[in-house]
Amino acid sequence: MDTAVAPVVEFETRPDRYHHWKLQFDGPVATLSMDVQEDAGLAPDYKLKLNSYDLGVDIELADALQRIRFEHPEVHTVVVTSLKDRIFCAGANIFMLGTSTHGFKVNFCKFTNETRLAIEDASEHSGLTFLAALNGICAGGGYELALACDEIWLVDDGNSAVSLPEAALLAVLPGTGGLTRVVDKRKVRRDLADFFSTLVEGIRGKRAVEWGLVDAIAPTTQFKAAVAKRASELAQHSDRPSSGPGVSLGPLNAKISADDVAYASVTLSLNREKRTAELTVKAPEGPQPDTPEAILKAGDQFWALRAFRELDDALLRLRLNEPEVGTVVLRTTGDPEAVLAVDQTLLAHRDHWLVREILLLMKRTLKRLDLTSRSFFALIEPGSAFAGTLFELALAADRSYMLADAERPNTIGLSPMNGGPLPMSNGLTRLQVRFLGDPSKVDDLLAHEGPFDAEEALDAGLVTFAPDDLDWDDEVRLAIEGRAALSPDAMTGLEANLRFAGPETMETKIFGRLTAWQNWIFQRPNAVGEKGALKVYGSQTRAEFDWRRT
Amino acid sequence: MDTAVAPVVEFETRPDRYHHWKLQFDGPVATLSMDVQEDAGLAPDYKLKLNSYDLGVDIELADALQRIRFEHPEVHTVVVTSLKDRIFCAGANIFMLGTSTHGFKVNFCKFTNETRLAIEDASEHSGLTFLAALNGICAGGGYELALACDEIWLVDDGNSAVSLPEAALLAVLPGTGGLTRVVDKRKVRRDLADFFSTLVEGIRGKRAVEWGLVDAIAPTTQFKAAVAKRASELAQHSDRPSSGPGVSLGPLNAKISADDVAYASVTLSLNREKRTAELTVKAPEGPQPDTPEAILKAGDQFWALRAFRELDDALLRLRLNEPEVGTVVLRTTGDPEAVLAVDQTLLAHRDHWLVREILLLMKRTLKRLDLTSRSFFALIEPGSAFAGTLFELALAADRSYMLADAERPNTIGLSPMNGGPLPMSNGLTRLQVRFLGDPSKVDDLLAHEGPFDAEEALDAGLVTFAPDDLDWDDEVRLAIEGRAALSPDAMTGLEANLRFAGPETMETKIFGRLTAWQNWIFQRPNAVGEKGALKVYGSQTRAEFDWRRT
Repeated sequence: MDTAVAPVVEFETRPDRYHHWKLQFDGPVATLSMDVQEDAGLAPDYKLKLNSYDLGVDIELADALQRIRFEHPEVHTVVVTSLKDRIFCAGANIFMLGTSTHGFKVNFCKFTNETRLAIEDASEHSGLTFLAALNGICAGGGYELALACDEIWLVDDGNSAVSLPEAALLAVLPGTGGLTRVVDKRKVRRDLADFFSTLVEGIRGKRAVEWGLVDAIAPTTQFKAAVAKRASELAQHSDRPSSGPGVSLGPLNAKISADDVAYASVTLSLNREKRTAELTVKAPEGPQPDTPEAILKAGDQFWALRAFRELDDALLRLRLNEPEVGTVVLRTTGDPEAVLAVDQTLLAHRDHWLVREILLLMKRTLKRLDLTSRSFFALIEPGSAFAGTLFELALAADRSYMLADAERPNTIGLSPMNGGPLPMSNGLTRLQVRFLGDPSKVDDLLAHEGPFDAEEALDAGLVTFAPDDLDWDDEVRLAIEGRAALSPDAMTGLEANLRFAGPETMETKIFGRLTAWQNWIFQRPNAVGEKGALKVYGSQTRAEFDWRRT
Repeated sequence: MDTAVAPVVEFETRPDRYHHWKLQFDGPVATLSMDVQEDAGLAPDYKLKLNSYDLGVDIELADALQRIRFEHPEVHTVVVTSLKDRIFCAGANIFMLGTSTHGFKVNFCKFTNETRLAIEDASEHSGLTFLAALNGICAGGGYELALACDEIWLVDDGNSAVSLPEAALLAVLPGTGGLTRVVDKRKVRRDLADFFSTLVEGIRGKRAVEWGLVDAIAPTTQFKAAVAKRASELAQHSDRPSSGPGVSLGPLNAKISADDVAYASVTLSLNREKRTAELTVKAPEGPQPDTPEAILKAGDQFWALRAFRELDDALLRLRLNEPEVGTVVLRTTGDPEAVLAVDQTLLAHRDHWLVREILLLMKRTLKRLDLTSRSFFALIEPGSAFAGTLFELALAADRSYMLADAERPNTIGLSPMNGGPLPMSNGLTRLQVRFLGDPSKVDDLLAHEGPFDAEEALDAGLVTFAPDDLDWDDEVRLAIEGRAALSPDAMTGLEANLRFAGPETMETKIFGRLTAWQNWIFQRPNAVGEKGALKVYGSQTRAEFDWRRT
């Protein structure tokens, strides 16, 4: 058994605390420069040499991206580059990977994947363009970060190359979407991709352009100017505002005790002994802003923004810091009408840059839930607020239980938010995935006026079970206990397959096909055994392989 | 390290040798009945109780399906049922799985998946309908076999249920497409699928119909008659002939020596020390039949049928019996014009049932190659016959090397066979996947008249590299040695990702997402460790889990 200890991770940070990135603004162009501090790794047992990264570096990157979106609406183009001489980024730190638990490695890759997909989400939906300015060696995860950008420029100095050396050097896969993006996004020919992905030294100069691995090259002396010129050009095609103000993302100020993490609108309560948790989201309380101006003024205290930032943080804590908590009960509390009113405001103003960003954040957070390898059961009881946006939690759950009690009314409700703005990573809404066999049902349900009681919800297929008050306690308790007793690995595999019915996209290919193979390889002695390539890297020992193909 | 020894497997069989299946014919309806002999397993260390199966049982099933297609064109509907009382099939034998090597388990699942996909291929393209008549308990792999059929009938006896108990009972996934087919093919709602897939006892009767797990139920006394009636109805909608004759599939009579398997048109030569093999396919020689009647007369000796049956057998031997041979050189010899002439005949008569079956067999065999986890390098040298159908081998390869030698002419050629009839499992042709970024190029290349020499082939992007005769030997040798030195696991993962650029289908989801997760679980101590659920099954010991979620 794997005995390494994973560090406890905090996901909140802010630019003045960054160790590894510099964020500079020049009108519509922001420059995000990697300058990793060797000694500021998340754990003390490795040094982050050559702009290699660990989870801490990526948490800062994710934070910077979020702040550019919300705090700097005047930014149209982001240049991603490095402050190190002749090095862009050497990829994920190998010693960090070699000393991490299996679960930590997998969750590290999942988070870095989500961060890169957030870049692509901003490109596609936020009016931002990302330009990777590779001013030096760009290996492994470094190239995978570049692949997430819209354009890749590589310095042509006879030395700087892009490479995916993981397979040849470490006997693992490029774990952050590299293989998928090379053939599916950049559409590099599969045989050239095969050659490239087994080449330690990578490919540079003209050949990198010809094969489609980068978009352009420029000699060292002209590189900065060429990048600056191109960034200005790209910045002209954005529908973001030409000036601020933006919305400051303040600290969440969660109250953390032994078993609870309590935010303003979200609470995560852990029962570690039973390996379960309850994740509760509160509906908005009191008057809510209903114009873009009022939302701007409310800023990060606007319920929709605050609650989903909190939910995101809670999910990440659960993933990284509570590996044994396998079953999570999803609850909501408060006034469902208040949720529906906020939904209406968001949809009425969805073209406003800030509302758009809030909707995209909600979408990404719900995707994070879909991709969290814990079992989720939604419990719908009197006093809950599973309506519209918050009903997406029940739709994202593996199952939902709704109390049918004639004495105490209990309803759920839909809104147009269930009909499009919050798609899953396969491009479908959760309602569409739910009714894959009967697409017309989705339209019928969205046209339904008013709430559904338990019987109606069960008939409509919107909840899994609707026990009455005699059965409720036992049925729910047995379901949760039963789930928590099953093999964690089997549940992870089961959920990864059942949650994503329907089409696959580049995004789901990264989390399905690529990640599943990478996780397999992360278990194999050829990579992580005592003489595995990942373990012996950097020592004098040569890796030894079991040559059997699977 | 995994020290269990895998049995040496032969894939050829015929009905009079079957141990486990009875094949009966009644006009347009064939009945394929499972009657597994407990003591006739492929290895001696388990008993095949309750119609549970091992690879030997599935080899017979695959053979029976192939023979129905080729030898019995008058069959329109196949009823799949069991001769055991109250038991349809208990799924893959657990003790077999518990005592197998990791590689054997994975290859067992891959073969059984291919067999079930061949059922669906026959449904979609051959005019056959499959009716699963579940006359008793139908668990795990038994239900997965039923899921591959067009219709599922379940006896309603108060006891017989369909179930996927793998996750709950054994801490593994249903490994033969079950999860994918439940939500993607039958479109069972994902929350119901979640509940069903964690339930050891399964679901029976009316609820199984309501949830979409089966299509119909009938009480015990009426079951046989109802199935017979429905089979007759289904048999009326087929475009297969109403009477024979078919084509007998005789033995391949391969000559097997220590390092070679030599068939009539295919040779597999092994260099176990270097962990490489050469797989050579000969072009047709002498006059070839060019009408359906002549093809019928030539029967299993017609080059197209014989060569692809041989190639299929060679690939299966490689997978199961030569696990350490990681790199395979693909060669062709003979007259490329002869290949193109056969291509022309096949395409001219593709609507004839036999020609259709031959084309479908070619397609399935090439898919088997795509799905074989070995590195394939095609070597195109003077005297080779990489044209049309045989050029698909070069397109399926991870890389191709073509000798550019002004002294000795060396060409490749395309035919309409590269333009549609032999798609990959993602639904695209290999040319379409190759030029995913430039779809118009595919049409241009298919419109090209005559062969391509090395320079033209390289320019067109049809081969990876074209070294001249000075560089050829070293470049090819280094490429093969270099590949054979890399981690087998990393190459398996790399190829599984790079080969399938573009869209995903139910079929690729089964081999990508589902299989990759299953392989991961097949490595995990919670399943296969000393106290893992798969290991302790049937003993008095209770499985012990590491509760950390990944």
